[in-house]
Amino acid sequence: ARPRVGYFYTGQTLDSLFAEQIQKMKVRDYLSFPAVIKESASAYEAVCDMFLEDVGSLFVIDEKNHLVGVVSRKDLLRTAIGTQDMNQVPVGMIMSRMPITYCRSDDMVIEVAEMLMAREIDSMPVVRDAADGLEVVGRMTKTNITKAFVELVEGIPDES
Amino acid sequence: ARPRVGYFYTGQTLDSLFAEQIQKMKVRDYLSFPAVIKESASAYEAVCDMFLEDVGSLFVIDEKNHLVGVVSRKDLLRTAIGTQDMNQVPVGMIMSRMPITYCRSDDMVIEVAEMLMAREIDSMPVVRDAADGLEVVGRMTKTNITKAFVELVEGIPDES
Repeated sequence: ARPRVGYFYTGQTLDSLFAEQIQKMKVRDYLSFPAVIKESASAYEAVCDMFLEDVGSLFVIDEKNHLVGVVSRKDLLRTAIGTQDMNQVPVGMIMSRMPITYCRSDDMVIEVAEMLMAREIDSMPVVRDAADGLEVVGRMTKTNITKAFVELVEGIPDES
Repeated sequence: ARPRVGYFYTGQTLDSLFAEQIQKMKVRDYLSFPAVIKESASAYEAVCDMFLEDVGSLFVIDEKNHLVGVVSRKDLLRTAIGTQDMNQVPVGMIMSRMPITYCRSDDMVIEVAEMLMAREIDSMPVVRDAADGLEVVGRMTKTNITKAFVELVEGIPDES
């Protein structure tokens, strides 16, 4: 790796040096394990899973394990204060259905950060292509972004 | 301000240059407007406020407007699926009571990021001293941290 002490000649602004370092941060190094639920599961089961997994949203999959949507704490809270029976309403009824925002392992963390901000969402699934759909392989949230931000100060690991 | 193009002699590592720029980011420039609720309000009112304000937690204040705790979507969801009447349970009964984690306007954003990660929380109030307690003046969440991260790449504004 390039020596990182002393003189630099860069022809770049300090800001563009930052940008370069930040662009090296890839989703694959920061993603979390995804929490998924079948679309046929009940809203009540979703609440329980959310507590057990300690997450704010669950990615919803069909019987082929393909991504079909996302259900948030907010969706469940709205159902809980409504008149429907939490044990009877399937997740597929109250979720946000595809197309939802997702990313891939080789995307940059900063792109995900920009999408989370622009779309005012808290998380997105990390996916890969399956036979005839998308398979969920991870989860990116503002927690993962915050972790990346903290690591910028603690020192970015050298690539050597 | 110091010219930011061409040669730098720094005697510093690139990482410590990053650290320096990041440490200039202060809470006062990134905080959001706080969403607060009285401890005597019902859990049901808290759910409604959370939807109206579109936040994941509310800071709880007493009759003197002093911070006494925080109530999260998770606390409300736990109550909603329980046997208690959401209209009867006061927020003061289901909140996390002080001491809770808070910060101040002149703290660094990175310190807040580190605290959010270490304590596994999503937000904290920004406070200032009042006569005999703490007054809530803002809110720092992982959304504010994500915004700071995105701005690092878009270019940190010059101080001149």
